[in-house]
Amino acid sequence: MSIQTISIPAHERESSIPSFDATAFSLETFSSWQNLAAVLDHTLLKPEATRAQVIQLCEEAAAYRFACAMVNPYWCGLASSVLAGTGVPVGVVVGFPLGASLTSSKRDETERLLRLGAHDVDMVMNIGLLKSGEYEAVQQDIHNIVELAHGSGAIVKVILETCLLTMEEKLRASELAMAAGADFLKTSTGFSTGGAKAEDIGLMRGVAGGRCGVKASGGVRTLADAKAMLEAGASRIGASACIKIVGELGAP
Amino acid sequence: MSIQTISIPAHERESSIPSFDATAFSLETFSSWQNLAAVLDHTLLKPEATRAQVIQLCEEAAAYRFACAMVNPYWCGLASSVLAGTGVPVGVVVGFPLGASLTSSKRDETERLLRLGAHDVDMVMNIGLLKSGEYEAVQQDIHNIVELAHGSGAIVKVILETCLLTMEEKLRASELAMAAGADFLKTSTGFSTGGAKAEDIGLMRGVAGGRCGVKASGGVRTLADAKAMLEAGASRIGASACIKIVGELGAP
Repeated sequence: MSIQTISIPAHERESSIPSFDATAFSLETFSSWQNLAAVLDHTLLKPEATRAQVIQLCEEAAAYRFACAMVNPYWCGLASSVLAGTGVPVGVVVGFPLGASLTSSKRDETERLLRLGAHDVDMVMNIGLLKSGEYEAVQQDIHNIVELAHGSGAIVKVILETCLLTMEEKLRASELAMAAGADFLKTSTGFSTGGAKAEDIGLMRGVAGGRCGVKASGGVRTLADAKAMLEAGASRIGASACIKIVGELGAP
Repeated sequence: MSIQTISIPAHERESSIPSFDATAFSLETFSSWQNLAAVLDHTLLKPEATRAQVIQLCEEAAAYRFACAMVNPYWCGLASSVLAGTGVPVGVVVGFPLGASLTSSKRDETERLLRLGAHDVDMVMNIGLLKSGEYEAVQQDIHNIVELAHGSGAIVKVILETCLLTMEEKLRASELAMAAGADFLKTSTGFSTGGAKAEDIGLMRGVAGGRCGVKASGGVRTLADAKAMLEAGASRIGASACIKIVGELGAP
């Protein structure tokens, strides 16, 4: 299938897709460090992270009111107990970072994590399956997770791993993730050959319009990085340097 | 606990631990490309691997009689059907590559993969849990998988991710994996900051003696690399360049 068949003609797009005003969103977000904190996923996914480091991450997420504290599955229960009562949600990763788990294992993992209190579920699309042209299976793999998550009041971000995809694959993956009900399209795991790029954010936002969120992740380390991503259309950012980033905007 | 308490005094070691003769093993293995092939895990774990590439990997594993064809979980069923009747086993990874999955998810994943025909189960130890000093939980996480695998006639290699560990942690992890019943200690996922090093192989073989295998993985790309690993004490090698490596020893 060529790109044309999955792109929506401009005249239809205008009528059917709600738009997203990146400039206005960006201006509002950068008007205070608190507003910025509210779109940052405070993230600690390195495999060697200790229990003490996970606790610290969660305490920081609560103190700064970050969008969520994002941890590896093993630490989900711990994060839930540290964040209990704070109103700051727990984020977890599923099928991470390769996306090549069994569909049933992604489902098992999600069920367990939802029971442990996860609210943001960042799952990795099955990249090899996309590259094999098996689009229905890719969409189903995502839809299973979306169904479980939405049934528990949780949300799903679908990681495309843009650095491994061609332009056509990025468009296709975005369409499939949205068709599967994703709440966010997300660029990167941070464990592959590259991270978020403004041009990929623009592409993903172009496909999504205002129908879902776009999360930039991987290599976002400074306020300038965050600005570039939001101006390109991101509505959420994942980073391990969140405290440094809001600090640049005046956070204590 | 200090290193002393987990090391076994030399006089006890001599009597209780069967020894492993790396020189003899290495000489025998390098005496023909077929012998070498029999200790090479033919590996394709990149997330973008397609169905066609997985089929090709398995056909190559059958043609060269590699130790196994090692694939991501999603492709286990496919690999089993391609390799059916060849006698070449299917290898899979569990909790890969971060090792920070829920213990229950690692178990679910293993059960499903064993049903799909996996024989070599390469699992990642929970590295953060080790660094948190929670040794019993680390051992239990491994033991669960060993129990399931051995119950199905499968074997377990425990990936320590040596590049992330201190010397004491490498010793500790090796002891825990062996106490949990591991069939192999394995150095690396190939997805972290470093791969197999001869000195780590030496350390792991020093702890293991002849009690279990040692697998070198990550960055083994040439016959010279493979030789260095076997001479240091490895008894299995994981690589994506297996055909090139046996080719250097005369394979067609």
